[in-house]
Formats: sequence, C-alpha cells, structure tokens
Amino acid sequence: MKIFAYGIRNDEIPYVEAWERTNPEIEVGYTQELLDPETAKLAAGADAAVVYQQLDYTRETLSALAAVGVTNLSLRNVGTDNIDFDAAREFNFNVSNVPVYSPNAIAEHAAIQVAALLSQAKVMENKIQSHDLRWEPTIRREVRDQVVGVVGTGHIGRVFMNIMKGFGAKVIAYDVFRNPELEAAGVYVDTLEELLEQSDIISLHVPHIPGTNDHMIDADAIAHMKDDAVLVNVSRGALVDTDAVIAALDSGKLYGFVIDTYENEVGVFNADWRDTEFPDARLLNLINRENVYVTPHTAFYTTHAVREMVHQSFDAAVAFANGGEKEGNVVKY
Amino acid sequence: MKIFAYGIRNDEIPYVEAWERTNPEIEVGYTQELLDPETAKLAAGADAAVVYQQLDYTRETLSALAAVGVTNLSLRNVGTDNIDFDAAREFNFNVSNVPVYSPNAIAEHAAIQVAALLSQAKVMENKIQSHDLRWEPTIRREVRDQVVGVVGTGHIGRVFMNIMKGFGAKVIAYDVFRNPELEAAGVYVDTLEELLEQSDIISLHVPHIPGTNDHMIDADAIAHMKDDAVLVNVSRGALVDTDAVIAALDSGKLYGFVIDTYENEVGVFNADWRDTEFPDARLLNLINRENVYVTPHTAFYTTHAVREMVHQSFDAAVAFANGGEKEGNVVKY
Repeated sequence: MKIFAYGIRNDEIPYVEAWERTNPEIEVGYTQELLDPETAKLAAGADAAVVYQQLDYTRETLSALAAVGVTNLSLRNVGTDNIDFDAAREFNFNVSNVPVYSPNAIAEHAAIQVAALLSQAKVMENKIQSHDLRWEPTIRREVRDQVVGVVGTGHIGRVFMNIMKGFGAKVIAYDVFRNPELEAAGVYVDTLEELLEQSDIISLHVPHIPGTNDHMIDADAIAHMKDDAVLVNVSRGALVDTDAVIAALDSGKLYGFVIDTYENEVGVFNADWRDTEFPDARLLNLINRENVYVTPHTAFYTTHAVREMVHQSFDAAVAFANGGEKEGNVVKY
Repeated sequence: MKIFAYGIRNDEIPYVEAWERTNPEIEVGYTQELLDPETAKLAAGADAAVVYQQLDYTRETLSALAAVGVTNLSLRNVGTDNIDFDAAREFNFNVSNVPVYSPNAIAEHAAIQVAALLSQAKVMENKIQSHDLRWEPTIRREVRDQVVGVVGTGHIGRVFMNIMKGFGAKVIAYDVFRNPELEAAGVYVDTLEELLEQSDIISLHVPHIPGTNDHMIDADAIAHMKDDAVLVNVSRGALVDTDAVIAALDSGKLYGFVIDTYENEVGVFNADWRDTEFPDARLLNLINRENVYVTPHTAFYTTHAVREMVHQSFDAAVAFANGGEKEGNVVKY
C-alpha cells in the first residue's frame, strides 16, 4: 500500500517519519508542493492522497487525481469548504478530515497569554531590552487572585478552566449547554451579564453562530464588566466588537485584551507585511499596545497538534485504502 | 496609637489606605523618604516605625529613632542583614519582618515564563512587532506534554507543581526533605541525576547553601539532561553555573533558560543602564537571546505580595505597640 502526501511542511516531517517507522509495511511519499491539476500526477500509484487545506480542490484537481487512480482524500485539517463536493461525488471520492487535534493547544495559549498580560510581561521585557532593570512600578497581578469567567464549556473551555484552577483562581462559567459535572460543582452562573459582572478575566470559548452571537462582547457588555477586567478571545473574531474594546482600553476600563482571532483577519493574518504598508490600522493600533497580546491565529499550532493532524490523516487514508473508514475522521457529504 | 512608615512606594499606597480603613482607631503617617539619622525625627510621636530594607539601619539611625521615643521597628521585607543588632539590643528595639508574603508570586512567575518560552512567545512577538504575521515555523510545545522536574518541594516548589499539574503535565520531584503527601503520591525520584535524566523542564526551588549546592547545575548536570530541556532558576543565582548554561544554549543541548536570579546580580539588577554601558557582558548575552527569559529578581513583586508586606508589617507594629508580638513575624536576635 502507498500513501502520498502534499504540502508537507518542515515541521511536519518528523511526524511523517515517526508514522513511517510505526507503519513499515506502508510506502509513504510526500512533497512540499500543493495538490493542483498539475501535481495530481505525483500521486500516481498511491492508494490515497493526504492534503492540507490551502488551495481549492476543484473539479479539475479532483478529476486529475481520479485519472491517476486516486479517489481517497485525507485532509490534515478540519475545514472542507474548499472541496467541490459535486465533483467529489461524481468521481466517488472518500474524504476524511481531522476535526479535533488538540483542545489543549488553544486553551494553553489563552492561559499563557492572559497570565503573561497580568504579569505585565511585555512592559518588563521592553524595559529589559532597553537595559532598564528596575522592577518598580511593573507590578504583577497573581492569577490565583482572579475570578475567571469562562464563556463556553466545551473541550477547550474545560481545559482552560483546569489550567486556571491549577493556578488557584476561582472559576465561574456560562453556557447555554451545561456540562453535568461542572453543573454539579456549582460553577455556572445563570446569565452572561452575571458572568461579566463577577469576573476579572473573561475568556470566550464558543463557536461563532452568525445572526446569534455576533459582537456578543460589545460596549454594553463591557459596561457590565468590573474595572480592570481582561478580555480573552481565542475563538472567533466576530464575537467581539473591536472598536468597543479599543474605546475601553483607551478609557482604562479594560486592563488588557488577548486575541488570537480578529474580525477582519482574513487576508491579513499569516502574511508578511514587513516590506509594505500594514493593511489594517485598527489591528496595528492593538499590536502596538503593551497591554494587548495579539497572535495571528496561531493558538492551534503546537507540536502535539501537528502530530495529531499528520497521524490521524495518515491513519484515515489507510482505512480508506483498506476499504473501511476511520471513526471520527470521515467527512459525510 | 500612631504608626509611621518610611519608604512607601506608590504601589504600596492603596494597601496602606486599605489598612487604615480597617484600623480606623490607629493614626497612620508615612513618607516616601527612607529611614536615616535625619529622617528619624519624622517618626516622633509614633508608637512604631515601619520600614523597607534599602539603607543600613546603623547605630546612628537606631539611636536617632530611639531619641524620638520609637523602639519598635517593623520591616516590610524578609532580610535583616542591614540592621546593627548590637545597637538594636542596646536601645531595646523590638524588630519584626515579613518572612512569607506570597510563595505563589514566585511559583506563578516561574510557570508563566517557562510556558511562554515553550510557546516561543518572544520569537512570535518579535515577528509580530516587525509586521511578519506568518505562523510558520514558530511552533509551540504544549506544557501538558512535558515531564516537569521540580528540585525542592517547599512552599514555592509545591505551588509550582500544582500549576504544572493544572496544565496536565507529568510532575516529578527531588528533595532531601520529603513532603509526606508528595511521597505518598509517588512523586519523588531518588537522585538529582534521575530527575535530570527524566525531565523536559527542570525548575529549582531550593535555598542556596554556600559550600553545599553552589553550581548544583553545572556542565556535568547539564550533560545528564535530555536534549531540548529547559532550565528554570527563580531561586538563587549561585545554584547555576551560568557559563555552562551558555555553552549548552550555544550547542543547542538546552532549548531555553528562565532566570529571575543571576550569580552576579548584586549591583546590576534593579538599576537603570539605559544611558551607560551595560555592566555585565554575560548577562547581556543572555538578555539578547530569544530563548532566554531574564527578569531582574522581580518574581516576588505582585500586588498580593505587596499587600501582605504592608498589612503584616503594620499588624506587627501594632502588636509591638500593644506590648505583645505578632506570631510569625518577630525577629529574635
């Protein structure tokens, strides 16, 4: 059996090689090139192709892949909106993805960033880099002294809560879908407003449901928060009214803001703007603040997650090639 | 009753005021000036003086304080090596200090810094500040995937362990004095070497005992570590052979290094070197590395700790003024 993988990055190679070592009976080929109508022929002779979402998988691409005998397609990522499913149906493609690779990656990132912000880590690092080694007045707030309000108690929210509890913080939560264990522990408050009023840190771990929770954190929500609260959004940019947050940072109402997502991130994040004008003045405003911690949608990007993405997609490809399917990874369409 | 406090910093004022509110029967006076033979007279009429270690409390200073009727001296800090105890005895001084103000401050700092280092937070922030928003290849190591070796399981070490466990990391420990609860949980390994060989993160939480554990982490100890280990020292600079660490950073043996203490920190930390030549080339070498996180002995400096330092010292001063003493704060000499 042979598996051929496209778009393999340098940081994925160790995990591809580890998978090869534990699956010595399977031949593995890979390339850094992305799958397109031209490169499809590289998969000739393979039983399945493994890919990572970047280009669209058009009718032309899928047709070219089917033409060399490959109709098993295993994505190393979650998103499938770049697949022409009509064409996939026509050519009888089996498609898999990796819906869960590491809730901890996202939760840890949120926790580390907000803890660093409470430590004034950027302020201190900038002082040190300028050779000012005086500690005053760069005082830290201990995580254990904070009331941490978690909005959304799915996988990621629950891991985030455990980390905050490890620090000794008091954790409260709000969710329309309650986790029975957390419910029994008395963690939930009844309304978002209650959570906003009681929390020193508010961290969002909910999906964005257009028309329902757009700008769930707006000027009104911020007005309900304690003074010196910190807002964390590593979920979806659309959940937060960025202008309202900037106003609250300007007024001093908010102590800080942590984001890994941004309303207008598409086309701005994961690009290099060093030699050209920065495309979003509002984002730049945030990046330039010492009490705002911006990362460009990188919270998912850990060695643990990459290993899962590689290994689950390769395992799913093998399952298809054997005429079966890997539970939890099949895309029904 | 009146308490007079010296050297009150801006960040201490809120806690002095809070203490005044809960002790309305006691008159409080304070100054930003430090206690010396000249300023001693400011305490005239007070029943106790509260101070923070900076200047030496010489015979002349203590004599001047006694001359205005004040022989109760409450330190807001731990250290008492700046007191002329012969003079203190002669003038019948009662002396108190604050030996424990926040083990969490130190433990949280160690945890946050090492978690940020595993996240390559400095690398990512430097990229973002240069307007490079590409995530690759700045990949993070999840804390949960690390084996964390804790050397020293006193107050601070144990808080650090709890934080790491909150992340989901595996924690092991080494100590000559074993905590019964941790012993029962099977956390201890038998030798420092075993700990070094098994750990991805090694964090020191032991006092420095000259002649016993100087350079307990030297080239030989580092040779026992896993490749890509991270060393954390927020305890005492003398515990670590800095040259050996630099060699291991240069060779790539160590993934990173976190310090809040440094062998030659006296006279270098808590000073402003912006307009003059930096006094320690080796420290500058460390500061300039993206995988080394230096802070200038600031781990203790949290709002929680400052509140404890103010409130415990004021309470101890009142106890002396009432002819008694506050348990846990009295300096026997």
